[in-house]
Amino acid sequence: MILLDGKAASEKLLKTVKERVSALKKKPHLVVILVGDDPASRLYVKNKQKAAWQTGIRSTVIELDYNTQENELINRIEELNTDEDVTGILVQLPLPSHIDKNKVAAAISPLKDVDGFSPENVGRLTMGTEPYFYPATPQGVIMLLDEYQIPIEGKDAVVLGRSNIVGKPMAQMLLRRNATVTLCHSFSKGLDDKIKTADILVSAVGKKIVRCKMVKNDSVIVDVGIFRDSDGQLTGDVDFDYVSDSAGYISPVPGGVGPMTIASLMFNCSKIYQ
Amino acid sequence: MILLDGKAASEKLLKTVKERVSALKKKPHLVVILVGDDPASRLYVKNKQKAAWQTGIRSTVIELDYNTQENELINRIEELNTDEDVTGILVQLPLPSHIDKNKVAAAISPLKDVDGFSPENVGRLTMGTEPYFYPATPQGVIMLLDEYQIPIEGKDAVVLGRSNIVGKPMAQMLLRRNATVTLCHSFSKGLDDKIKTADILVSAVGKKIVRCKMVKNDSVIVDVGIFRDSDGQLTGDVDFDYVSDSAGYISPVPGGVGPMTIASLMFNCSKIYQ
Repeated sequence: MILLDGKAASEKLLKTVKERVSALKKKPHLVVILVGDDPASRLYVKNKQKAAWQTGIRSTVIELDYNTQENELINRIEELNTDEDVTGILVQLPLPSHIDKNKVAAAISPLKDVDGFSPENVGRLTMGTEPYFYPATPQGVIMLLDEYQIPIEGKDAVVLGRSNIVGKPMAQMLLRRNATVTLCHSFSKGLDDKIKTADILVSAVGKKIVRCKMVKNDSVIVDVGIFRDSDGQLTGDVDFDYVSDSAGYISPVPGGVGPMTIASLMFNCSKIYQ
Repeated sequence: MILLDGKAASEKLLKTVKERVSALKKKPHLVVILVGDDPASRLYVKNKQKAAWQTGIRSTVIELDYNTQENELINRIEELNTDEDVTGILVQLPLPSHIDKNKVAAAISPLKDVDGFSPENVGRLTMGTEPYFYPATPQGVIMLLDEYQIPIEGKDAVVLGRSNIVGKPMAQMLLRRNATVTLCHSFSKGLDDKIKTADILVSAVGKKIVRCKMVKNDSVIVDVGIFRDSDGQLTGDVDFDYVSDSAGYISPVPGGVGPMTIASLMFNCSKIYQ
């Protein structure tokens, strides 16, 4: 069994991004909007800023009060859309419950939507035309598989979880690479049997869902889940000890998809359309 | 085995659409653009016009020369986007090879895109927010299943074919109804085994691909394929005689999904956003 080392792969990718950025005439400028003061969100934003700094990408954080209204936030985004100095816009999730995240995603210009969540980028991804930006996490997963030269075409891929951020775009990206994709979720029946059919399993659920004794022999297990277990330890969706006998590759948590996501986001930030 | 009678269901739907239209203050006006003079396309357009007429929807056909340039077509669409008298715009496919159909789809205002092919409507469909219009064929399939009160939630659905017009939006619509969806295509391996796992099978390939002796017992088989066999007879993807012993429901060809598609398109035309 081979570990998919996301730490090493992400460092390599960040180096590439740094080289791209240094060759650019117009330097990218990422604006991150943070609404409220959720400590986890603050930490994520800090990590993104750090990676931006590391790769020579300018970044600005706009902190807005928790009580900011939806239309105020959207107005702010529209200002940034037309601001030529800004090349990427990212709204840190989750948003307060009084703000509709889909409306916010739809307000961001597709040309600056480095998270790839705006309807136009999602639509392009689905239609098989080139989106301006691919969502960072699934793009990071594909990059990690490519780093290990793992073939995707013709493989049976099973994706667990259907979020707009990971599961659904992951399914689309695997499909674009000609995998046969099964998308599973909370209504799926006989989940263990479905897991066993996967040549490539991507789990993005956020609980210990891959517990079955057997995955397919030599399969590739990508664990996107990350949460704290009852002992406070960071862990993923996959019960590592259970599956490590049969799997060919596993991405660990932490040190797998997490660092790839941030590097993949920086890769997006280095693309300039305006 | 029960036949899914698309003819009867479509007549019922057209009647509902007619009632909706007659209750509307502003009457819908569909503009169909036909580029070139492909006889099959001309027939499709005629059938759409007939259904529009039948439901009280005004329709206009704009016929453009085969040599029309992409930007001319897009300019024409942009005029229609801003024309308040026009409530729906449809570009008949296929387009000549010198025109990029994705660019054309992207030019149609999402509020008038009755085919549901513009990136914003595709993106909304994928993200689980409400698109202005659902693509006619998959919407027609769902309506046909609903007509027979066939449960979708928690079922294993297999979709054969990944076109932007049928396969991919079909997968999204089944997913929205909480089916577990596997999307298969020309790179898929072990297709017969995958077909056998389906509680609901939707085939949209255009050749006799469902030939296996057995489908799952009591499964629902929806045949979207329509083409002429070597004897010149209209036929579908499914070898009816083979599967009719085990299937619970089958949609025939002709008389299944075909008429539902047109009625579903008219349902879209009766929605006015401007």
